[in-house]
Amino acid sequence: MKDKIEKPEPHILVIFGASGDLAKRKLIPALYNLALQNLLPDEFAVIGVGRTDLSDDEFQEKMHNAINNFGKREKHEEKINSFVNKLFYVSLDTSNASEYKKLAERLRTLDEQLQTRSNVIFYLSTPPMLYTVIPKYLSGHGLNKSSNGSRRLIIEKPFGYGLQSARELNRDLLQYFDEHQIYRIDHYLGKETVQNVLVTRFSNGIFEPLWNSKYVNRVEVTSAESIGVEDRGGYFDTSGTLRDMIQNHLMQMVGLVAMEPPSSFDSNSVRNETLKVFQSLRPFELMDIPKNVIRGQYVESQIRGEKVNSYRHEKGVAENSRTETFVAIKFFIDNWRWGGVPFYIRSGKRLPTRVTEIVIHFKKTPHWLFGHYQSEGEACNQLVLRIQPDEGILLKFAMKVPGQGFNVQNVNMNFHYADLQNAYVPEAYERLLLDCMLGDSTLYTRGDAVEKLWEFIAPIQKAWDDDPLIPLYGYPAGTWGPESADDLIEGMNMTWRYPCKNLADDGQYCEL
Amino acid sequence: MKDKIEKPEPHILVIFGASGDLAKRKLIPALYNLALQNLLPDEFAVIGVGRTDLSDDEFQEKMHNAINNFGKREKHEEKINSFVNKLFYVSLDTSNASEYKKLAERLRTLDEQLQTRSNVIFYLSTPPMLYTVIPKYLSGHGLNKSSNGSRRLIIEKPFGYGLQSARELNRDLLQYFDEHQIYRIDHYLGKETVQNVLVTRFSNGIFEPLWNSKYVNRVEVTSAESIGVEDRGGYFDTSGTLRDMIQNHLMQMVGLVAMEPPSSFDSNSVRNETLKVFQSLRPFELMDIPKNVIRGQYVESQIRGEKVNSYRHEKGVAENSRTETFVAIKFFIDNWRWGGVPFYIRSGKRLPTRVTEIVIHFKKTPHWLFGHYQSEGEACNQLVLRIQPDEGILLKFAMKVPGQGFNVQNVNMNFHYADLQNAYVPEAYERLLLDCMLGDSTLYTRGDAVEKLWEFIAPIQKAWDDDPLIPLYGYPAGTWGPESADDLIEGMNMTWRYPCKNLADDGQYCEL
Repeated sequence: MKDKIEKPEPHILVIFGASGDLAKRKLIPALYNLALQNLLPDEFAVIGVGRTDLSDDEFQEKMHNAINNFGKREKHEEKINSFVNKLFYVSLDTSNASEYKKLAERLRTLDEQLQTRSNVIFYLSTPPMLYTVIPKYLSGHGLNKSSNGSRRLIIEKPFGYGLQSARELNRDLLQYFDEHQIYRIDHYLGKETVQNVLVTRFSNGIFEPLWNSKYVNRVEVTSAESIGVEDRGGYFDTSGTLRDMIQNHLMQMVGLVAMEPPSSFDSNSVRNETLKVFQSLRPFELMDIPKNVIRGQYVESQIRGEKVNSYRHEKGVAENSRTETFVAIKFFIDNWRWGGVPFYIRSGKRLPTRVTEIVIHFKKTPHWLFGHYQSEGEACNQLVLRIQPDEGILLKFAMKVPGQGFNVQNVNMNFHYADLQNAYVPEAYERLLLDCMLGDSTLYTRGDAVEKLWEFIAPIQKAWDDDPLIPLYGYPAGTWGPESADDLIEGMNMTWRYPCKNLADDGQYCEL
Repeated sequence: MKDKIEKPEPHILVIFGASGDLAKRKLIPALYNLALQNLLPDEFAVIGVGRTDLSDDEFQEKMHNAINNFGKREKHEEKINSFVNKLFYVSLDTSNASEYKKLAERLRTLDEQLQTRSNVIFYLSTPPMLYTVIPKYLSGHGLNKSSNGSRRLIIEKPFGYGLQSARELNRDLLQYFDEHQIYRIDHYLGKETVQNVLVTRFSNGIFEPLWNSKYVNRVEVTSAESIGVEDRGGYFDTSGTLRDMIQNHLMQMVGLVAMEPPSSFDSNSVRNETLKVFQSLRPFELMDIPKNVIRGQYVESQIRGEKVNSYRHEKGVAENSRTETFVAIKFFIDNWRWGGVPFYIRSGKRLPTRVTEIVIHFKKTPHWLFGHYQSEGEACNQLVLRIQPDEGILLKFAMKVPGQGFNVQNVNMNFHYADLQNAYVPEAYERLLLDCMLGDSTLYTRGDAVEKLWEFIAPIQKAWDDDPLIPLYGYPAGTWGPESADDLIEGMNMTWRYPCKNLADDGQYCEL
């Protein structure tokens, strides 16, 4: 992991699925942002690959519009022009081996023209079924290796649909690329505030001594969305929150919160430590699953007087769908640091607000000296690492109520990223694309970690698939999920942290 | 220590020195504030005692004006009137035993009239030479005891001029009053934010585990004034900062920062613990004093283009005065918790700003993972307990610089009392007067503690008095004191916390 601002080697970035949403909304704007910060190599090109027939000019024009529509930084017409001049397009049927010749040829000429030293990144922003096809055909044309340059492969999520398919995907990829060439995206790891979990823990003398079972009561990770499935109903209904959010994003955050200090900050040292966390996850027994894993699906409700559809009435969703839109899990990490400390994670759609945060709930003092007894729930300190939005850190602590006696109240100490002067908080894809060009895979997931997480998650999915008697709770859209998610947390006055109240005016909790 | 809002028993408060500054500026306005909050007993009276000849009416009128001039809360004409109706006056030569008959008589009749149940507090807001005279004569008239009510004695600072005189004062007072009747004022202990040191430490699970030599690098207590001696030159020149600030206010704050958790929050449990701290202070050897105690006196300078007088040119100050207006001390507390942790305290006049704060400097992490090495000074966490002004708490911690790599920067998490909604922060004298009426002496200093602190401080005063070769440094008014105060703190990039920069445009550091 580099600690100075550094420009990558010359590169050509090949984006498969260049006419798709991700390229338009995220990848191209991220690259433009890097260009604005002068972080792209001088010798640089993007080759968009897609089935649609487009000329370079047409592709450039489309991407020009994409930057104008989805870019979040200043838009200088001149700078956009100079950036999109580096974009090229190859029309290709990716399932047809022979067509890769076109790509190979274009790569060769551009590499010569632009002096990009044979460094190529292949970015697979395609449907998952192409994740093995494309590498195979790239390999068939010898594009997976270069004697002078580097060849890297970025794979978008989802990485596998379950334990079996993830293992197969790893196995297949490793036929054509070495592990050090493979960059598996988890865009949560690209988030500034997620990376800051590591810096907060390991650059402050005061947090790490408290960061263990002696002082921590429990750890909570929440990733809430206020929107429903929108136009992704068809995809989501075959996936569900467990696969879509928990197995990857939430568990990766758990890895960063729970890991031991690495020996150094290079990619393998860091990823060795998160892997150790995943290896220490206490596996679920089949009979424990209904008690420790709560699943829910949003049902119709009214929010501020307006009717909100149930999940089952969303476009593309089966009308008797049993796909979960909410998951809450209680689990343990059986290692020296965390023995006995419950971890609670939850994620859901159509919750009252959009928020991602990590909450460290500390234990209360060994003895209570002041006035009336406070329950563990009231009296404990919380350190809240706010991932998004309102990025920052909050420490809930107790102080004296001004005036007579020694009464105690809880107050918050706050730090907001927004208060930083001149700090530009880059988007996840900026960081990840830059790191890949720099050959730094710290913030990408490693194959062994992905498989470990599927090992942990798969039994839950299997139990749900096998046993229709495990409840699927309906929760009114605009609430914090099924009521039974609260029962996961045992102890007087102990609940999840609720950054805001339920929104729904009405709606019925039920079992589906 | 009570934890519910409570009204005291009926009381008569006798203020000796009622025509003095303290009564006018602090005591009467504080009592009025208590009346506003309905915290005074219904049966209540103040008897002002002074040499000046005043009628009750005249005294009431004076105090009415005092509230209008010096009170900091809302001024309802009606409420002020109703309050000052409870004020009475007895003109008395306090050095004449027989005159106390007048006071005894007035007390008897008022007690009968107002049904104050023979509860009387005598407040000595007089020159120190009267501290034993008045109790003696009160005792002579049997006013020190009552078979039905309580009799209490409040003594203002300074309590003794040195070890010997403090011991004598304690001995003399104990002839006429029992220790539990004696309330020694240290108005810093009445400050809301000073009391909050205890609540912050003992009601949060996260601070106490760090509050020891394992995690604390050093502790700093600063009490800075921006003003000079003003019209107190005559008094101050016979006292100096060591006696006026260090022996009492700063060391009492050290007591609260360093004490063990008390067994409960009653006055003797708390004061037993602060006493233990004072008993553990490592005494100074004569030869260590010049190295560990820095004294200074402000000299002429220019601040924002305006000339500021040297201390020696202040009214009432001897023109060759060697009285210190600045003291900085490094010392150790030789006990289990603090072994090896240096404590740094400093106080001075004509410093760049008015601020009182306690800073806990934590140690850095055992190993530095991120980029370039940070020195202990840069990398350590600070917890700043801001006593005044801008009351609050600040935590300096490290986080990631947004963007590429894992660079680290220091930022502040802040809590300001001013952000509390509807929180009225009472003045020190409100709290102290109320506590005395409630019979709670937790926030008053006990005789044994006062003597212990004089034992610690007296050798410094003696060394200065005996040895003219111990330097007295001149520092330009508007700077942070002698440069050698910085040398007290050893270690790379380690200094005092400077809440603001030097103010002086010019002026010469020198030796006087």
